[in-house]
Amino acid sequence: MKVAKFGGSSVATAEMLKKVADIILSDPERKFVVVSAPGKRFEGDIKVTDLFIELGQCYVKDESIEPALNRIIDRFHSIIDELNLNEKMLDEIEKSIQHILEADNFSPNRLDALKAMGEDSLAKILSEYLKSLGKQASYVNPKEAGILVSNEPGSAQVLDESFDHLYALRDREGISVIPGFFGYTKLGELMTFPRGGSDITGSIVAAGVKADLYENFTDVDSVYCVNPSIIKHPKEIKKLTYREMRELSYAGFSVFHDEALIPAFKAQIPVCIKNTNHPEKPGTMIVSERDATNGPVIGIASDTGFASIYVSKYLMNRELGFGKNLLEILVDEQISFEHAPSGIDDMSVIIRENQFPQDKEKRVVQRIREELHVDTVSVERDLAMIMIVGEGMNSTIGVASRATEAFARANVNIEMINQGSSEVSMMFGVKSDKLVPAVKSLYETFFK
Amino acid sequence: MKVAKFGGSSVATAEMLKKVADIILSDPERKFVVVSAPGKRFEGDIKVTDLFIELGQCYVKDESIEPALNRIIDRFHSIIDELNLNEKMLDEIEKSIQHILEADNFSPNRLDALKAMGEDSLAKILSEYLKSLGKQASYVNPKEAGILVSNEPGSAQVLDESFDHLYALRDREGISVIPGFFGYTKLGELMTFPRGGSDITGSIVAAGVKADLYENFTDVDSVYCVNPSIIKHPKEIKKLTYREMRELSYAGFSVFHDEALIPAFKAQIPVCIKNTNHPEKPGTMIVSERDATNGPVIGIASDTGFASIYVSKYLMNRELGFGKNLLEILVDEQISFEHAPSGIDDMSVIIRENQFPQDKEKRVVQRIREELHVDTVSVERDLAMIMIVGEGMNSTIGVASRATEAFARANVNIEMINQGSSEVSMMFGVKSDKLVPAVKSLYETFFK
Repeated sequence: MKVAKFGGSSVATAEMLKKVADIILSDPERKFVVVSAPGKRFEGDIKVTDLFIELGQCYVKDESIEPALNRIIDRFHSIIDELNLNEKMLDEIEKSIQHILEADNFSPNRLDALKAMGEDSLAKILSEYLKSLGKQASYVNPKEAGILVSNEPGSAQVLDESFDHLYALRDREGISVIPGFFGYTKLGELMTFPRGGSDITGSIVAAGVKADLYENFTDVDSVYCVNPSIIKHPKEIKKLTYREMRELSYAGFSVFHDEALIPAFKAQIPVCIKNTNHPEKPGTMIVSERDATNGPVIGIASDTGFASIYVSKYLMNRELGFGKNLLEILVDEQISFEHAPSGIDDMSVIIRENQFPQDKEKRVVQRIREELHVDTVSVERDLAMIMIVGEGMNSTIGVASRATEAFARANVNIEMINQGSSEVSMMFGVKSDKLVPAVKSLYETFFK
Repeated sequence: MKVAKFGGSSVATAEMLKKVADIILSDPERKFVVVSAPGKRFEGDIKVTDLFIELGQCYVKDESIEPALNRIIDRFHSIIDELNLNEKMLDEIEKSIQHILEADNFSPNRLDALKAMGEDSLAKILSEYLKSLGKQASYVNPKEAGILVSNEPGSAQVLDESFDHLYALRDREGISVIPGFFGYTKLGELMTFPRGGSDITGSIVAAGVKADLYENFTDVDSVYCVNPSIIKHPKEIKKLTYREMRELSYAGFSVFHDEALIPAFKAQIPVCIKNTNHPEKPGTMIVSERDATNGPVIGIASDTGFASIYVSKYLMNRELGFGKNLLEILVDEQISFEHAPSGIDDMSVIIRENQFPQDKEKRVVQRIREELHVDTVSVERDLAMIMIVGEGMNSTIGVASRATEAFARANVNIEMINQGSSEVSMMFGVKSDKLVPAVKSLYETFFK
């Protein structure tokens, strides 16, 4: 039994939905289907979910909702038309939208309900389309499926009992089409997952029904070993482990939402990333364990937008609690740290720049100076992190040497190395403008 | 004007004291002399300070003090005899000891007073000896010199006003001989510095009198670039900076007490490490700045006795305050951490094993598991740290590459790399049994 999840680009048009139906029907194991809302059809297009958000904002601000509503209706209209489905469906979608908007007051939950309309409508359309092809298929609302979540609008977390509810769906006849991205609280209120949350639904359903495979259909043939915008046509990754995926997704691997896999991971369901446009290609398998056949490094992730807070103080090393006190100031200022390399009398804290606007920097620096009586405190911005990832890297002698040599060959100074906690990754900090040459050189070293 | 400090081995015998006198008298700039207590004369000998500690412990336990007392008296006796000094000095030393022992009750301060007797007596002997050679010299008690310290028996810290008091000593005629290792509180109580504290006194006096040079006489010709017990006849370091010395001293560079230099450092007094047995050799200069002429790495320090606490938890990265909470438990348990490398969902904390006995380990592991709800927590012992140190290393491309290659060549797996906070050092963790081959290989790389 397989769970197939189709992303926004895979369901953007009627033409794509036909491909989706072909894929579903080509394998009787594909009993559960999870869909996103229609995504971009072309560069510059607007995703249906963004149109729903715009609609909600206009409504709140008492501006005209017509432009956004018309675009939404147009998109569904053309899909329904091209699939030769009954136009009554369109009326129902419009009614549902009006119903949400006309509820008593505009709470965050109502925004959640609007945001979820893209997925919900599309799941209805797809199940109708499958039926129109003479197949047994049905739309299953997440409430009916038993996907219970915490009461956190926009960042709901799944509750454990959901998995048992979902298990009961195994016996359901035909193909079940479930909209991604949302669940319901125990009180029956709709809550959405964080953005990208259709992946989360897919992963939850796969874990719940104990699928043999969770197929995640997207618009790339596979996960690449490095960002294709840095290296043209990079090597495809055939198989990687959950741990590797999790580490890679931290720094710039945006194939899908990085926390989405956790339910599948916990239930040990293998995941396959496939391309809706080339379903015959093998894609990338994400599994619990793999043979380390392709060398110690499987991927290179990289991301910009980091800053470093450097603090020095004589005899810091002797001062019990210094590190804790420094991190406490950051917690106080709602800044989470990424890494904290330390010398004898100094310590740096690496954070994401988006957590650290100028005014906060000023306050944090002042607090560190005054509360910790340090000798020096300074901030460096425009840092990039590069991570090499691979199972067994930790036990392979010479990986650090090959990696650091790659930096030297590219004439890139390494500002920071963090290695030793994760067994599957090694992280390097460089100045942002050195990211590209460094990644290119690492690619040469480990993949050529 | 110079301050010359002579360590325990330099004042262990009358013969050595003659060398010391020759050194002092060969340069009229050597106006201030700071001495340790007599150290070991040969492998297996007992330092006089240790005899005083033994004496105090016997007295407290109501055991016979004769054996220790006799050994102390014997040592001073032979020194006084061989230097042809008046035997009355010996009586005075004995009287002073009795005076301390017969005070009302045995408080930690009285142990401090006993511990300081080695230095104090030797300073008196040396000044008498210089006088017997027809030179103008005098014993200066730290109270008279104005060395004021905090009320922390055994780990006193100098108070700032001491430096002004010491400055007044500049006008004193002749050679001033000051016992190292102790000062007095404002209430007049004797307090010792941490062990090795004669270096501290020397450094304080040099800073106070604003010496042109602080000479630290010991039993090695210079500071070596690596531990001579690992590499035979290693390269001598001619000149290094305070920062380099401080980093090197952290991990196994035991030429002298690593925090002793700070007063000299703050006053920008250059320091020279010299050999009492070869005073004609140039020794090692420790300065504020140096030309980076000898390549980026000046020394390799290494030390065993580290342990690592590994913690993993899904979505740790998303949990604001996790790092702070982990360090808080350690602070609570009076454990100071050395380094804290972190992955995405895991973090390791490197600590010194001597802070982490088995019973404490059990409690800490339990607390981490229960209070932080982690997925995994484990402890690894028998780790060693290897540090390469050098000014400007941070801006030299390729140092990390050469270093990590050295580990690979020695077939040593790197358990941890910590680089990025200190500009002058890079730290590597390895299993303890890999320390020697790793250091040898690094030496080959950077010094051959």
